[in-house]
Amino acid sequence: MIKVKHIEQHFTESEFIGDVVIGIADGLTVPFALAAGLSGTVSNTSLVVIAGISEIAAGSIAMGLGGYLAARTNREHYLAEKEREYREIRELSHREKEEVAVFLREWGLKEKDVQSAVEDITSDDERWVNFMMKYELGLEEPKPERARNSSLTIGLSYIFGGFIPLSPYIFIGNADKSLIVSILITLTALFGFGWVKGKFTGTGALKSALQTALVGGLAAGFAFALAKLIS
Amino acid sequence: MIKVKHIEQHFTESEFIGDVVIGIADGLTVPFALAAGLSGTVSNTSLVVIAGISEIAAGSIAMGLGGYLAARTNREHYLAEKEREYREIRELSHREKEEVAVFLREWGLKEKDVQSAVEDITSDDERWVNFMMKYELGLEEPKPERARNSSLTIGLSYIFGGFIPLSPYIFIGNADKSLIVSILITLTALFGFGWVKGKFTGTGALKSALQTALVGGLAAGFAFALAKLIS
Repeated sequence: MIKVKHIEQHFTESEFIGDVVIGIADGLTVPFALAAGLSGTVSNTSLVVIAGISEIAAGSIAMGLGGYLAARTNREHYLAEKEREYREIRELSHREKEEVAVFLREWGLKEKDVQSAVEDITSDDERWVNFMMKYELGLEEPKPERARNSSLTIGLSYIFGGFIPLSPYIFIGNADKSLIVSILITLTALFGFGWVKGKFTGTGALKSALQTALVGGLAAGFAFALAKLIS
Repeated sequence: MIKVKHIEQHFTESEFIGDVVIGIADGLTVPFALAAGLSGTVSNTSLVVIAGISEIAAGSIAMGLGGYLAARTNREHYLAEKEREYREIRELSHREKEEVAVFLREWGLKEKDVQSAVEDITSDDERWVNFMMKYELGLEEPKPERARNSSLTIGLSYIFGGFIPLSPYIFIGNADKSLIVSILITLTALFGFGWVKGKFTGTGALKSALQTALVGGLAAGFAFALAKLIS
């Protein structure tokens, strides 16, 4: 119990910062690539800026609002399943007890231990239902505020991240110069935020930094080459 | 056991189609919004097409390659944790047994049943490690091909989805007419793919259809208004 509490606390402390970093790292990639692609075909940076801002608006709404609605629906789905599980343990308690026994046998419990463990677990309805939700259906209770806040934080951070590759096109008039400055600051930012993202997702900082920069760089290179090709 | 097998089978059959639908539904949104935003500021549709194709290239690479690399890293992380868990049950077997007991007590097992259940579970190293991975660390074994294929399928479907809102700009010369046709076919497609997406993610078809169309419509409306405002 102490362990679980500790993990939860650790999460709330750092999850917000983790969401910010993920949003920024994602937000850097597509606006960067789009701006690079367009800068190869137009001399006028104002169109690059308009396209970039349209993309940032669309991407952040798709991510933030889409994530928020998905989280709400997820929770409703969980509560409906839980309702059904309560009904099942009342109406089909024999079958549901047998399902608990099946899990315990899979974990290696000997037949003589299975029956008493089943009786222990099913002696309390709430505990029994939580057990079935987690192990029969594989569903964890979605924390409502957490999932919503997370989507909104990621969406807002996407906006912030998107303005990093776009800023040279806003402040420097020339498309070619803006492209070079945008590449330099964005690859540096992708590397940096990829590094911090690796720390938060536990995948290793250097690896995440290199992967984030690689994906952003390839996306921008491809977009640039394609735009040149068709213009 | 039969139940688990059944679920796995069900997944492989429909997961591919599910990924295609999710990729298409996501791919519709941002290119649709971007094209709508730009169409408000340029009379010439070729720039809308170039920007749209740049976005599709960037988005699909970010999604496909990004997802692929994340899946590979996830799996490495899982295997490293499993290695560590094997070491811990050898070197700190007493502490690890106590951790199993803590879980069993949380599920309501009485003290007299806990000890024999712990002995059952920890009598086989592989089962013990799998138990700890799943319940102490909350990690499921990532299926390597599955996660990679899923990212690539979603990335490729994103490309297909992105061309739906873009096609009027490619085939109709006029930006205003293209915008109207794009809105009609894209909202219809968002509704349709949202419907199927709801079936696959189990969130309810009509609700998912309305949400998908709403997010896409709002993103496009916002992008259009913003582009008009700054141009």
